Amino acid sequence: MNFASDNIVGASEQVLRALIEANSGPLPAYGDDPLTREIETRLGEIFEREVAVFLCATGTGANALALSALVPPWGLCVCHRESHVIDDECGAPEFFMHAAKLAGLPGTGARLAPETLETWLAELSPSVKQMPPKALSLSQLTECGTAYGRDEIAALSAIAHRNGMKVHMDGARFANALVSLGCTPAQMTWQAGIDVLTFGATKNGCLAAEAIVFFDPADAQAMPWLRKRGGHTLSKGRLLAAQFKGYLADDHWRDNARHANAMAQRLAEGLVARGMRLAWERAGNEVFVIMTQPRAEALRAKGCAFHPWSPANLAPENALAADEGIFRLVTSFATGPDMVDAFLAQVDETK
Amino acid sequence: MNFASDNIVGASEQVLRALIEANSGPLPAYGDDPLTREIETRLGEIFEREVAVFLCATGTGANALALSALVPPWGLCVCHRESHVIDDECGAPEFFMHAAKLAGLPGTGARLAPETLETWLAELSPSVKQMPPKALSLSQLTECGTAYGRDEIAALSAIAHRNGMKVHMDGARFANALVSLGCTPAQMTWQAGIDVLTFGATKNGCLAAEAIVFFDPADAQAMPWLRKRGGHTLSKGRLLAAQFKGYLADDHWRDNARHANAMAQRLAEGLVARGMRLAWERAGNEVFVIMTQPRAEALRAKGCAFHPWSPANLAPENALAADEGIFRLVTSFATGPDMVDAFLAQVDETK
Amino acid sequence: MNFASDNIVGASEQVLRALIEANSGPLPAYGDDPLTREIETRLGEIFEREVAVFLCATGTGANALALSALVPPWGLCVCHRESHVIDDECGAPEFFMHAAKLAGLPGTGARLAPETLETWLAELSPSVKQMPPKALSLSQLTECGTAYGRDEIAALSAIAHRNGMKVHMDGARFANALVSLGCTPAQMTWQAGIDVLTFGATKNGCLAAEAIVFFDPADAQAMPWLRKRGGHTLSKGRLLAAQFKGYLADDHWRDNARHANAMAQRLAEGLVARGMRLAWERAGNEVFVIMTQPRAEALRAKGCAFHPWSPANLAPENALAADEGIFRLVTSFATGPDMVDAFLAQVDETK
Amino acid sequence: MNFASDNIVGASEQVLRALIEANSGPLPAYGDDPLTREIETRLGEIFEREVAVFLCATGTGANALALSALVPPWGLCVCHRESHVIDDECGAPEFFMHAAKLAGLPGTGARLAPETLETWLAELSPSVKQMPPKALSLSQLTECGTAYGRDEIAALSAIAHRNGMKVHMDGARFANALVSLGCTPAQMTWQAGIDVLTFGATKNGCLAAEAIVFFDPADAQAMPWLRKRGGHTLSKGRLLAAQFKGYLADDHWRDNARHANAMAQRLAEGLVARGMRLAWERAGNEVFVIMTQPRAEALRAKGCAFHPWSPANLAPENALAADEGIFRLVTSFATGPDMVDAFLAQVDETK
Repeated sequence: MNFASDNIVGASEQVLRALIEANSGPLPAYGDDPLTREIETRLGEIFEREVAVFLCATGTGANALALSALVPPWGLCVCHRESHVIDDECGAPEFFMHAAKLAGLPGTGARLAPETLETWLAELSPSVKQMPPKALSLSQLTECGTAYGRDEIAALSAIAHRNGMKVHMDGARFANALVSLGCTPAQMTWQAGIDVLTFGATKNGCLAAEAIVFFDPADAQAMPWLRKRGGHTLSKGRLLAAQFKGYLADDHWRDNARHANAMAQRLAEGLVARGMRLAWERAGNEVFVIMTQPRAEALRAKGCAFHPWSPANLAPENALAADEGIFRLVTSFATGPDMVDAFLAQVDETK
Repeated sequence: MNFASDNIVGASEQVLRALIEANSGPLPAYGDDPLTREIETRLGEIFEREVAVFLCATGTGANALALSALVPPWGLCVCHRESHVIDDECGAPEFFMHAAKLAGLPGTGARLAPETLETWLAELSPSVKQMPPKALSLSQLTECGTAYGRDEIAALSAIAHRNGMKVHMDGARFANALVSLGCTPAQMTWQAGIDVLTFGATKNGCLAAEAIVFFDPADAQAMPWLRKRGGHTLSKGRLLAAQFKGYLADDHWRDNARHANAMAQRLAEGLVARGMRLAWERAGNEVFVIMTQPRAEALRAKGCAFHPWSPANLAPENALAADEGIFRLVTSFATGPDMVDAFLAQVDETK
Repeated sequence: MNFASDNIVGASEQVLRALIEANSGPLPAYGDDPLTREIETRLGEIFEREVAVFLCATGTGANALALSALVPPWGLCVCHRESHVIDDECGAPEFFMHAAKLAGLPGTGARLAPETLETWLAELSPSVKQMPPKALSLSQLTECGTAYGRDEIAALSAIAHRNGMKVHMDGARFANALVSLGCTPAQMTWQAGIDVLTFGATKNGCLAAEAIVFFDPADAQAMPWLRKRGGHTLSKGRLLAAQFKGYLADDHWRDNARHANAMAQRLAEGLVARGMRLAWERAGNEVFVIMTQPRAEALRAKGCAFHPWSPANLAPENALAADEGIFRLVTSFATGPDMVDAFLAQVDETK
Repeated sequence: MNFASDNIVGASEQVLRALIEANSGPLPAYGDDPLTREIETRLGEIFEREVAVFLCATGTGANALALSALVPPWGLCVCHRESHVIDDECGAPEFFMHAAKLAGLPGTGARLAPETLETWLAELSPSVKQMPPKALSLSQLTECGTAYGRDEIAALSAIAHRNGMKVHMDGARFANALVSLGCTPAQMTWQAGIDVLTFGATKNGCLAAEAIVFFDPADAQAMPWLRKRGGHTLSKGRLLAAQFKGYLADDHWRDNARHANAMAQRLAEGLVARGMRLAWERAGNEVFVIMTQPRAEALRAKGCAFHPWSPANLAPENALAADEGIFRLVTSFATGPDMVDAFLAQVDETK
């Protein structure tokens, strides 16, 4: 009963099959092949717009490259202060942005509030000592498993644009957020003001496949060189394109997300039914549950795997008791209801 | 009849099978899994020594990361002036080395001569205006398809070490060079003074798999962070480890190289028998043939694919006539004798 | 009545005279001259230890270079979250550290408490996602004009060293802190665990002169190249050395600081006597006074110059009333008692 | 008799006097003062155009900052292969350009020929492996003491602009070149296609003063932040502005250059009259003379100081005999005719 993350499993069958199918025969190198072109076209259809697409094997690489296309070395990228880009990528964004800086702002549930951003920008010193803000990066799902509503994204993007900033969305769990909000890819991105998206596929059915999607191709002019010099241009480009072919076909990507979210819902409801409370409302495939440390230990002793989480973004009314902690449980396309139920059965055996 | 490169084909069957086998079941993320451990152990056996291993999806990433572990931002990395790291990686080494510089020296057949290195080092200014040399990078095979002999590697490494420099080998075609020299992996690397190796597997049977192999683990201390902040730590580490499992099993990697080299030999002999001459002696799976431009055009018109090459490293006695050019033909594990013979038949039809 | 900063005046007479004296005659370029050697020797005497010294024209350059000698590109430098290096240098430290990161911790009066550092380090994730801490930077005086006691410096340094970190002191107002604590330069630095000091002279009598002082010359091995490639090695090195010659002669540097501190004391006492309170205890030549915004406006209208300051590091018991603000008043070697008294007279005319 | 360089002397009397005059009284910090504004205006008059000006203390800093404003991290800056930026600045340009690369082309007398540039650009690979050229940097005077004619500058700039590149002039010895060509500052710069100039003053009468002059202010938009984060924004900006005030007043800067050039001419003529030949034609204040190594040793033994120089850019017809070397002799505003004659007298005593 491993709920440690959605990256502990391999590829879905459909994705693996696409990989096998694309393996034979010669294809031009470095992504200059018809399969890659096909994915670019497909993403344009999905987002209902001309897009510039750059495939990449890792989420950290994709985020860092996307930000480096938006932020000059002397600029700031604003994000939530516990966002993945600032906390979990070992400085990759700063490295790729050539020492540009991430400025982290607070917000309950790892969500930035528009007023927080507005106030912070208004108070920035105009002095040359102050690096100027050039981009805003939003995580959808957030680090607390919550989702921004379309109105919130639009409000934040509008503030950013008014201040001369571009807007990036870290969509490592894009599909989970999308099916949770029940809107179209276009609605959750460029129609709400997003300029560049890291469209994650690795966690939701692929092995190593992310797409950097620019909604204004003019923003992507430097990308071919940025990606190549980052070592992120695969010589056998088919590896990435084939995964996406399987991922995007027959709505597989949304099906996977719907399944993972449903499993998370089943899990969350089971936990609440057993008297526990959630740290933050669940939006996708992550459940952040509050339980006592001894109970968490007991569950681990029974072979259950999950991670502790920081209480930094907890709403005050939800504060932890002395022996309580927050624990993250993540489901994926490969999580079965039996696995959820088995875990809940273990919970029943602990206190 | 596509001889454009050895990266135009997918994975070998054995590698693909290993990938499929490793796909199911949960595994810890970020390369912290038993499969990755197994590859590290296996490479230690192959190199007959304790090694520190870092898997990576691209050769450019692997080279750049390896060099960044050896060269401080204010140092020089010496290499041949038409080497891959200086000419074909869009500045990735400089980016990862934080603006440290590559210094390119001349040499026939893209091979550095020990005397050239020795003289150049002796003439370097001791002034602070001059960045100090901190590493030497050798390509094996070279950009002209030649190989350094073990004695040459040892002589170059000795000079480098005497001057306080570490030695890197760019082994994008390591296996092809190895079977060509007929020595052991240890003999061609650390026993000849190599400190770090980019052990390429992508071109010789994998889809995207390179290993950075440190023969002194002390040199690798920064590598976990360097790789992560480069975006080169795959979350589903099994993708890389599985490819290597298939690649290294049953001497598959050397078999693939032997086959590719034999095909190149067949091709070279066929071309020479038809009156052409080679630009440089063939050591592995690349044939650099000199032919007239019209003939090359005629072959292309018949659907043959290959790249023109720079005459910069030609020995004077081998100079081109006015209408001649150099053309690179590359074979791989997937090249069949029929494909070689079909190409030679086309050659017979042109002049 | 300009109390905006201590960098609004030129050089002291003694420093200017030294500059004039050093102007004539040939001297070797790039700091390779006897005058520069003399300053290095003199600083060794002042600090009672062998030191490695690198002169530099700006405090931002000196801080950034010093930190770049301590922190690898993949490391963290811990500092107070409103320190000068993190807030007022437009990202210079990050640029020179090649995208290494500054991690800002909280603390009243812009002082880090040893427990804060200890706890923060203990809670750091051991994951490769987390950049490891490699240096601690302390400001003496701090951004709130307070000073660390020798015991506090020693306690913080001990924690840093136990955790494999080096310790830097940003001594932009080193002399002011030193005469305030009444200890020796050695006591306030290496005897309390400081590894590298930015010894500021610009604000206290020079025009543009800072010295980076390494207490362990081994830490300085890369500095000649780091400084040169930062563009901070003056070709006519006498400009820096001459200023230091005047600055360090006859205890001029401490006299200047004593004078500036005395003027600040006179100012602070005058303000308190007039019913105002200080935001933080005054340690050197900066007075942070709390007054109402209308009163501050009235003083400005009378031609008084000073800067507003952030209330972020205020102790809770000292919180601002609705119409109050914090204002920084800085004195220097050039501030006369008449100027202080004239300002206080203006204060008497406002409410 | 020290002819080692033009940076071995201090400031001229007029510059020193201006520095003394500007020392007293308060002035706003960080270059936001009326004296700095005055210099900006004055440079606009001198160049007959609206300019954006950034003062800086070192030539290396000024060159590196100027190039960083023109070249993105993934671009190339083309220059002569023995230019100062590529050979004598310890990688400062690459550091400030965030690992963008300098591409060095050959040319007799350290001058790039338009055809060389044109051919090189035409042969560049369009592949993403190749960093694209974004700037051209010309040195005026060159590293061999020669000067580009206005037509040559115009021809090179036109090629650069046609290829989407900006053009930088490294004018460390701008004044010497200018009076040598006998044209106006406008004619030698923007009217010939120069976009950005490093206007050197340090070698020709100042202590540490360079101006980065942008002829199109739009190119300078990032400069305030670039300079600050490079640590090159002096807090007491008057130091730089005052030097320029003295330097630019009463045509002092051109007078200094005329004098230095005349001394170099006297020296060159004296050497030629004594049977020696020049390595390259003298254009400014540097004489590159060919003499036998024993004679150079003999002169040094008599206390004469000068540097040996690389024969790399010698025209074939001027090749060195076995015991010959090239030696650089530099004059400055402070060189008197007596010093030249005394040196020539020493020459008469050697063979």
